[in-house]
Amino acid sequence: MTHSGRISFSLRELARRFGGEIAGDPAFEVRGVASLESAAPDRLAFLANARFLPQLRATRAGAVIVGPAARGATPLPRIVCANPHAYFARVSALFNPPPVARPGVHPSAVVDSSARIAGDAEIGPCAVIEREVDIGAGCVIGAGCFVGEGAVIGAGTRLYPHVTVYRGCVIGERGILHSGVVIGADGFGLALDEGRWVKVPQAGRVVIGNDVEIGANTTVDRGALDDTVIEEGVKLDNQIQVAHNVRIGAHTAIAACTGIAGSAKIGRHCRIGGASGIAGHITIADNVEISTYTLITKSIDRPGTYTGAYAFEPHRDWLRNAAQLRHLAELAQRVRKLEKKSKQPKRSRP
Amino acid sequence: MTHSGRISFSLRELARRFGGEIAGDPAFEVRGVASLESAAPDRLAFLANARFLPQLRATRAGAVIVGPAARGATPLPRIVCANPHAYFARVSALFNPPPVARPGVHPSAVVDSSARIAGDAEIGPCAVIEREVDIGAGCVIGAGCFVGEGAVIGAGTRLYPHVTVYRGCVIGERGILHSGVVIGADGFGLALDEGRWVKVPQAGRVVIGNDVEIGANTTVDRGALDDTVIEEGVKLDNQIQVAHNVRIGAHTAIAACTGIAGSAKIGRHCRIGGASGIAGHITIADNVEISTYTLITKSIDRPGTYTGAYAFEPHRDWLRNAAQLRHLAELAQRVRKLEKKSKQPKRSRP
Amino acid sequence: MTHSGRISFSLRELARRFGGEIAGDPAFEVRGVASLESAAPDRLAFLANARFLPQLRATRAGAVIVGPAARGATPLPRIVCANPHAYFARVSALFNPPPVARPGVHPSAVVDSSARIAGDAEIGPCAVIEREVDIGAGCVIGAGCFVGEGAVIGAGTRLYPHVTVYRGCVIGERGILHSGVVIGADGFGLALDEGRWVKVPQAGRVVIGNDVEIGANTTVDRGALDDTVIEEGVKLDNQIQVAHNVRIGAHTAIAACTGIAGSAKIGRHCRIGGASGIAGHITIADNVEISTYTLITKSIDRPGTYTGAYAFEPHRDWLRNAAQLRHLAELAQRVRKLEKKSKQPKRSRP
Repeated sequence: MTHSGRISFSLRELARRFGGEIAGDPAFEVRGVASLESAAPDRLAFLANARFLPQLRATRAGAVIVGPAARGATPLPRIVCANPHAYFARVSALFNPPPVARPGVHPSAVVDSSARIAGDAEIGPCAVIEREVDIGAGCVIGAGCFVGEGAVIGAGTRLYPHVTVYRGCVIGERGILHSGVVIGADGFGLALDEGRWVKVPQAGRVVIGNDVEIGANTTVDRGALDDTVIEEGVKLDNQIQVAHNVRIGAHTAIAACTGIAGSAKIGRHCRIGGASGIAGHITIADNVEISTYTLITKSIDRPGTYTGAYAFEPHRDWLRNAAQLRHLAELAQRVRKLEKKSKQPKRSRP
Repeated sequence: MTHSGRISFSLRELARRFGGEIAGDPAFEVRGVASLESAAPDRLAFLANARFLPQLRATRAGAVIVGPAARGATPLPRIVCANPHAYFARVSALFNPPPVARPGVHPSAVVDSSARIAGDAEIGPCAVIEREVDIGAGCVIGAGCFVGEGAVIGAGTRLYPHVTVYRGCVIGERGILHSGVVIGADGFGLALDEGRWVKVPQAGRVVIGNDVEIGANTTVDRGALDDTVIEEGVKLDNQIQVAHNVRIGAHTAIAACTGIAGSAKIGRHCRIGGASGIAGHITIADNVEISTYTLITKSIDRPGTYTGAYAFEPHRDWLRNAAQLRHLAELAQRVRKLEKKSKQPKRSRP
Repeated sequence: MTHSGRISFSLRELARRFGGEIAGDPAFEVRGVASLESAAPDRLAFLANARFLPQLRATRAGAVIVGPAARGATPLPRIVCANPHAYFARVSALFNPPPVARPGVHPSAVVDSSARIAGDAEIGPCAVIEREVDIGAGCVIGAGCFVGEGAVIGAGTRLYPHVTVYRGCVIGERGILHSGVVIGADGFGLALDEGRWVKVPQAGRVVIGNDVEIGANTTVDRGALDDTVIEEGVKLDNQIQVAHNVRIGAHTAIAACTGIAGSAKIGRHCRIGGASGIAGHITIADNVEISTYTLITKSIDRPGTYTGAYAFEPHRDWLRNAAQLRHLAELAQRVRKLEKKSKQPKRSRP
């Protein structure tokens, strides 16, 4: 892969590309993007949130992107737009463009003669491409990747080094799979037979839509009979486990270390915090937000934010409080008894 | 590896191989297996559980496997047997047989001349086999695998692409190790010396029994002095961490994302839910079941199911309830006080 | 890599190298190290802790390392020193020395001609080294590793097989990176724009200090704008996730399966238990200890131990107690009411 970006853009050029309104000098030349805190005077920063107004006042950035409410909060040349974060992401991509394929198959790669490799795709050193694989236009298959028999990689998708795609799996267009990702390993399908586990063959595939990004060392298991499905626009962070026959709805984002058990169905536009867990065979509605470290054990049928994490405290306090947790039902019982007693009419005395 | 399965089997043939009793047409030809929901009319499905009786009634499957209790629940040709799930697993393996080794060493593999490779084993492209390694009959070592000096891989074991086996480790027969598995990395052995960490050499091995399956990106560390041991028939899901000197008893199954700390001993026939944790230096009895997301901090000496997960709720409710958790010991104290007071004899009035 | 250790050392030789005082026969020849439980008569074991005095009494070891308090607890030849665990670690390293580089580039490795590889470094089979990479003296780059454009690997650092270092990342001297580690994959930077996720380019690097060890399948993401930083002497166990722009202070040790969210700052000399979580954008002071399975959601500004794990119990008890957790705020309310009532003056009767 090769990386390159242009050296500078004026605010006027940026507004022509991405919209927004310029306040201050439109000829100001931006030579890169940076955070408010660390920006040099030729850099463009952004204000995502009124919380960072002190940083805006202190910044050494030469120009900033702000929302309408912060229009007057700085004398710096600025672009005013509805969504400064997304605007910044697009400007940053001008300066930090994604790597581009260097067409060709590296001589150390092992490519089966029946594989269909687009002429402008890049196959890196020591990559292994099996029979009947289909690699689309402009794909980058990184060093040491493995793509198993009959798998399909859509146009414009990048596999960073050491990605594994098991046979028959399908990945959409413009995807990004980071190193160590494993797509299509066997789901954990076992039948118990007189104390021994009998393996249930995992005959389904993994099918991934367009514009999906998957973080380093995340694993997505193939389905047992039907497929495991990740719909378009889904973003998965690192070290996530997606079990067999899960379906993740379009444009859902899931933070690192989360585990999703078999056959769970997650809606569209959900946001799932890190190290959370989704039990098997449940359904989560669209637009659900799940907090970090939360285990979801039952289906959720309406949008909203759901949480179930234990709040930390100094160890000594935790020892005292956690011990009581084991007597909570009993405590509730005792309170009920006290309430009953307190409601009893006072016995009249003779 | 190469995959192939036969095209069809009659119910009579299946019963001849696997037992069970046929009800309905024994000549019915099954051309594959499927779930009750998605089966086509030439497929065989199964009923694991009375809960799925509605799906049985609605299925388009041509035949089904049922338990004795559901014998009369369908007019379809059927096999009646004691354990429909295990039966189904075996039939499915007829149609979806495990891949078979294609004997030979790929020219791009790097195999030390002192390694002993069985004649019918398959060594995939770009695999690296070091000195004195022993690869048994019928093994498949996938593309890009690494097997370190002196390691032993038992007959019939398959390593999917990108498995790493550090030097000296021993893996039994008929094992399955999925991509990204790392066997025998150093355990986390550190001694603190005036604020600096001194590495404690990890001189033990990992020793794995027969018929063990290990899921993608799971890691099993080598022992510090003695070995880390995984007994026969153990099944580990994806992204599990097994620390140094752990012992996992035979036929135990552990779901994804679980972490097992150093020197923990887990019994035989245990079932451990996903994302659970086992503290170091504790012992878990045989036949223990641990729920998802549960941290086991003390030894468990009797069979049973153990749980410790925080039940989720809408975020607003959680905020109110979790805040009280930090005052639970105090609350218990206050209830005790109320109880005391309520038991006091009423002061008699003059 | 090649491993070798000497065959025996007398206690006198050990004390000359590492200090400590000998009690008993200084000519006793030690032929290896072992645990108290499994030591043979020619082995040296150690007593870390008075808790293991019964094992000391029962040991078959020929000699032991003890602290001053246990000086008289055994008749065996012994070395008395302030820190038996660290002493043992150093002796063990004599018998189990770290592997040493076998200088040279394996013919199957793919090394860009612009890479600078120290003459005594070892580049293993099928490793891929890109443009302008810098590999220091005595480095070992294991089989199948990938080191991206412009990355720097400091002198004496070992990458075990299948480590991935993305472009531009910097790793210090004497580091150890275990198999499956991914350094410098993109952080999870996304901007939401009308229900779609826009990727925020991740233009920072990962910068790792000297003497850092990183366990198998751990991932450290590159920074969004600034760098992700791991300071000297940090020890990370397996399957840890370090998000973009995190900073981990020197000599902090973190156990397996922990997740650290974006921009968290962790102090020096911290100890963080396994499967814990650190929320984004918070700061943890130096010398903080965090228990296993604990989620830290707010900054911690003073040393101490912090805990937040749910204590497990038999499933039936958990069902009853956890159900009450959802009514805890209400329960507290009811107790308040009872208290109020109990404090009311008794209504005087006519």
